[in-house]
Amino acid sequence: MTHSKSGRALALAAALAVSAGPAFADEGMWTFDNFPLARVNAAYGLKLDQKWLDRVQAASVRLTTGCSASLVSPQGLVLTNHHCVVECVQDLSSGQTDYVKDGFLTAGRAEERKCPGMQAEVLVSIDDVTDEIKAASAGKAGQDFVRARDAAQAAAESRACAGDDRFRCQTVSLYRGGQFKLYKYRKYSDVRLVFAPELATAFFGGDPDNFNFPRYNLDMAFLRLYEGERPVATPQHLTWVSRAPQEGEAVFVSGNPGSTDRMLTVAQLETLRDLAIPVGQLQRSEMRGRLIRFSEESPEHKRIATDPLFGIENSFKVFFGRQFALNDKAFMDAKRAQEAELKAKVAANASLAADIGDPWSEIAAAQAAYANHFVAWRQLESAAGQYSLLYDYARTLVRGGEERAKVSAERLPEFGDTRLPLVEKRLFDEKPVDPALEEVYLAFWLSKTREYLTTDHPAVKTLLGKESPEGLAARAVAGSKLADPAVRRALWEGGKAAIEASDDPMIQLVLRNDPAARAVRKAWEAEVSGPTDAAAERIARARFGVYGDAVYPDATFTLRLSYGKVEGWSHRGVTVPATTNFAGLYERATGAEPYELASRWIAAQDKLNPETVYNFVTTNDIIGGNSGSPVLNARGEVLGAAFDGNIHSLGGAYGYDGTLNRTVVVSTAAATEALSKVYGQTALVRELTRK
Amino acid sequence: MTHSKSGRALALAAALAVSAGPAFADEGMWTFDNFPLARVNAAYGLKLDQKWLDRVQAASVRLTTGCSASLVSPQGLVLTNHHCVVECVQDLSSGQTDYVKDGFLTAGRAEERKCPGMQAEVLVSIDDVTDEIKAASAGKAGQDFVRARDAAQAAAESRACAGDDRFRCQTVSLYRGGQFKLYKYRKYSDVRLVFAPELATAFFGGDPDNFNFPRYNLDMAFLRLYEGERPVATPQHLTWVSRAPQEGEAVFVSGNPGSTDRMLTVAQLETLRDLAIPVGQLQRSEMRGRLIRFSEESPEHKRIATDPLFGIENSFKVFFGRQFALNDKAFMDAKRAQEAELKAKVAANASLAADIGDPWSEIAAAQAAYANHFVAWRQLESAAGQYSLLYDYARTLVRGGEERAKVSAERLPEFGDTRLPLVEKRLFDEKPVDPALEEVYLAFWLSKTREYLTTDHPAVKTLLGKESPEGLAARAVAGSKLADPAVRRALWEGGKAAIEASDDPMIQLVLRNDPAARAVRKAWEAEVSGPTDAAAERIARARFGVYGDAVYPDATFTLRLSYGKVEGWSHRGVTVPATTNFAGLYERATGAEPYELASRWIAAQDKLNPETVYNFVTTNDIIGGNSGSPVLNARGEVLGAAFDGNIHSLGGAYGYDGTLNRTVVVSTAAATEALSKVYGQTALVRELTRK
Repeated sequence: MTHSKSGRALALAAALAVSAGPAFADEGMWTFDNFPLARVNAAYGLKLDQKWLDRVQAASVRLTTGCSASLVSPQGLVLTNHHCVVECVQDLSSGQTDYVKDGFLTAGRAEERKCPGMQAEVLVSIDDVTDEIKAASAGKAGQDFVRARDAAQAAAESRACAGDDRFRCQTVSLYRGGQFKLYKYRKYSDVRLVFAPELATAFFGGDPDNFNFPRYNLDMAFLRLYEGERPVATPQHLTWVSRAPQEGEAVFVSGNPGSTDRMLTVAQLETLRDLAIPVGQLQRSEMRGRLIRFSEESPEHKRIATDPLFGIENSFKVFFGRQFALNDKAFMDAKRAQEAELKAKVAANASLAADIGDPWSEIAAAQAAYANHFVAWRQLESAAGQYSLLYDYARTLVRGGEERAKVSAERLPEFGDTRLPLVEKRLFDEKPVDPALEEVYLAFWLSKTREYLTTDHPAVKTLLGKESPEGLAARAVAGSKLADPAVRRALWEGGKAAIEASDDPMIQLVLRNDPAARAVRKAWEAEVSGPTDAAAERIARARFGVYGDAVYPDATFTLRLSYGKVEGWSHRGVTVPATTNFAGLYERATGAEPYELASRWIAAQDKLNPETVYNFVTTNDIIGGNSGSPVLNARGEVLGAAFDGNIHSLGGAYGYDGTLNRTVVVSTAAATEALSKVYGQTALVRELTRK
Repeated sequence: MTHSKSGRALALAAALAVSAGPAFADEGMWTFDNFPLARVNAAYGLKLDQKWLDRVQAASVRLTTGCSASLVSPQGLVLTNHHCVVECVQDLSSGQTDYVKDGFLTAGRAEERKCPGMQAEVLVSIDDVTDEIKAASAGKAGQDFVRARDAAQAAAESRACAGDDRFRCQTVSLYRGGQFKLYKYRKYSDVRLVFAPELATAFFGGDPDNFNFPRYNLDMAFLRLYEGERPVATPQHLTWVSRAPQEGEAVFVSGNPGSTDRMLTVAQLETLRDLAIPVGQLQRSEMRGRLIRFSEESPEHKRIATDPLFGIENSFKVFFGRQFALNDKAFMDAKRAQEAELKAKVAANASLAADIGDPWSEIAAAQAAYANHFVAWRQLESAAGQYSLLYDYARTLVRGGEERAKVSAERLPEFGDTRLPLVEKRLFDEKPVDPALEEVYLAFWLSKTREYLTTDHPAVKTLLGKESPEGLAARAVAGSKLADPAVRRALWEGGKAAIEASDDPMIQLVLRNDPAARAVRKAWEAEVSGPTDAAAERIARARFGVYGDAVYPDATFTLRLSYGKVEGWSHRGVTVPATTNFAGLYERATGAEPYELASRWIAAQDKLNPETVYNFVTTNDIIGGNSGSPVLNARGEVLGAAFDGNIHSLGGAYGYDGTLNRTVVVSTAAATEALSKVYGQTALVRELTRK
């Protein structure tokens, strides 16, 4: 699923074309201020203009939970994927009412319910702040470079939002530090769930079919934006259509691809391949095993672990795909050729060469420090307490207490003034905490930290003392009061003094880890991320010098537009058609999970038109974060919501191959039919179809 | 643990020297018929001779469960590791008596109990059969080559053992087909457990300390060989001594290293690195997670999963070490240099070059077929039903029924006449089957097979039909009668007709999988292993041509002798001493698993001499399979049992670095002290010390 993803297990044979310079046909995740309008109009015989771009931008939505979405009615109705809201559906469920299993249906607005921690954001402007950010960090190195740059970004954000809490301002580093843009969003902190189908319908075929095609998934859900307890008026929405997509039709995906690594140097890709991805995957795989068994222990365990397990299995496949793309010799050779071409073109231009120097060697040199610090940095800092909500709350409180005592520019950037509103929303929103799961997460993290750093590592000794990972995890979860939002609020408001006085065992655990975590973060910034970012800026400058701006930046979970068409693909003599239909769903059902139909679908079979196009594929270039993105045509009509990539989109993090990479979409045609005939959501259908 | 192993998680920094030709000082797992006596005598100032070698060989024992051992009394007493017998200890336990937890102590011979499926073997002769094996396969290619070679090996074995069932004959391919030797063993099928300490004592520090040093493990156990219900007389035993090893003392390890890949080509190592090891590790890691959670569900689940979990965690670390050794650029560059040197020396010798041709390119070409078939071959054939005893029984029965209807030379080699006695022993020995675990294993295998091959793969459709992996696993385990040895015997004796008439769901599951499994095995032999083995023979010939026989063959789980000395090591400024003592054990104990002392050890603390050398390290070159090997001095006195490697022995599968690689040993000094003062095993101590 394109929530944070990009691949399918065993496309070991999938070759990826890697463009050496400007993007190929249909390639690219373009920013709205540098979309190749002329090229696209020429290629597809269209007349798109700035007005069209503005309209699409205004109807595009980012969800802070890591997804994309779109406005599809004048009353703040938002279309996204089911898997983008499943955590909310889970949070609203209980042992008595399981909306994940049964679906969440509303008879009227009064039944729409707020999703904890979720914020929706609509981009309103983009401004270039490259010069001021670069001026601030010029001539600095290592951690000084990182801190100066981060402070300048925070300052730009504060100025742009000027304390107006209807907006969120965010400085975005594009082209790996080649440009800095100030993105200003209208934000909506009250987002309510309107409709979600049953998990069995949304995720029919489950993990085995994830990242595969043909598919048969109603991976779709509706939210609504509220302000002052009333739906937000959204005149700038996209037009919902119930017709099927046409083969060859030009389509656009407007959304927020999370992260790509297409501009990394070969040395960086090798470190991902040889160290970072394998370590992450081995741990993820073990956690997956623990959760699978946990799920099998009781219906309640199954209920609470469904969403976390989905997330882990999805990430597992994403990185499986990435690992095997990087393990592919031909792929890495293409990357090497690309890098050699850029270097040669720089060398051929004396003034450019003098300006750029040799950032590739600097990045290569930083890889040794990466290898030295990676495991400690991962276990103590970047993945500390991974998956545990209580640990996350405790760390926010501990660090927030310490950081807020400083002026904004001197804090860890995630606690800068412009970041605090969302930090506080996440901290204060009521959200169920499952102690059984929390214990699994915490024991896992502690035991892996001991395993990877060894029992004799000072940080491990400090963390564990004489306790076992399992014993400490059980004690910290059982004794913590942080599941209560009022307790969290009191500790937040009490600041550093309240934290230091707290006897909450989770707070104490975080306090014990924090000195080592901060130390390794400091070393990481000084020796790894600082030197790398400074060098990457110069590589970006080299790329602009050689290729101009006919290149798109790596994905940054900010709004991008990709273009393409509805089209299947052929591979090794097998042709995969562009669409599936309802008839195929009923054929694929076995009665056994994950190929079991929800009872509503069994009952509705005779009422549905079996020829209705259910899912379809397009050549658009997307990646995790794009989940929920509207797939629209040149008239700005929404034909579906992107929810996945096919097996060949595996290596999309590192390159795009238009002959094989495909976006997987659930059609609005199928949605309309299902909302009417399976779910009886007449009011919703009327709102969508304006009838 | 050196049961089937070689490394420790995060020696990412461990560099490995790779010798380009003849072995370095202390390097090598030498066959007893090509031990470098002159070199060792010169290096260590010794006077070892053939008689000494013969004596050591006659006292060395191989356990068919994958370990090594030695005879240490005239009454058939065998010293090995605890982790080599833990499966037996588990098999003899029940919900009422947990010998794994409490230890297995005997007051007299009548209490010694037979280990299911275990056979002990003592090597009696080695004969060269290279010419006849090579003649049989000469001029053949692909699967024909494999079948002709295997048939010739089986024929040589039949001739050598001549139907005398006191012996086992085995043709061994050394130097990757460079030589074939006929190994003849005196076999002992009735092996009884005499003594095993508590798991907490044998494996103190558990997985976190595994492959680390300093260590504090009584990883030691005693067995006894029986024949005709009486202990076997073994005059050719090693002398047990209770003195501590001396720093710098020359020591020898006589045992059966399981497998090394030091002679693989770079192309083969790359395939292991990029495909085979990652896939295996990701699956192993998930299974580890499932078993960890399973263990936490109840004391009984913990009891039955302890040994399997240990095995999986041990393998995980072994392959973690291997993966990161192969991911190390400097290491692979050294391997490339080694290969280039050999190729250059061949090219410089015209007649050798003409004879050898270019086997390196042939092997490189076979890697594409490897990648094509690997996942199907692994899931359907080589790892089918992995970990499940019932599936294993069923496959033995299904294939045995079909194969035994053919003449021996035409069977799958594992069912050749000379192999059948051990196949039957394993099939008929009574062994507890844990249905809860069996279900975990089978569901895991089925679900991973679906995941890796996809739902739409014909073999997956045949396996699952309309069932889920979990549903099918539950049905097959619940319905199978194969846990009963009498049922297995009847099906074995009934042959193919009985198998086809069986309604046992496990038999039926194997029958469903078998056509696809045999097909992919055939493709594997024709396109991967056949061409590779044929080319590897010529590389071996090249190596002999260039370096003579001053090289040792890759490990093959046959008897080898390694030499070295008692010595610690230094790395990054840290010096690790060669020995630990009992005092260190008590200091390291925390009271929390896996650092919890068994109650007997708490009670005995005051009686023990705290200075007793507990574990020590030596420079010997060993690997998984060597577990339990005697560590002896030049007088043939046994100073300990090898049970592990240190963190730097990680990449030992691919190369040896004498400055860092260490064998970890539990001393006979500690054993004597513990047997007397902790366990009160006076009869056993008297037998060992001849007092």
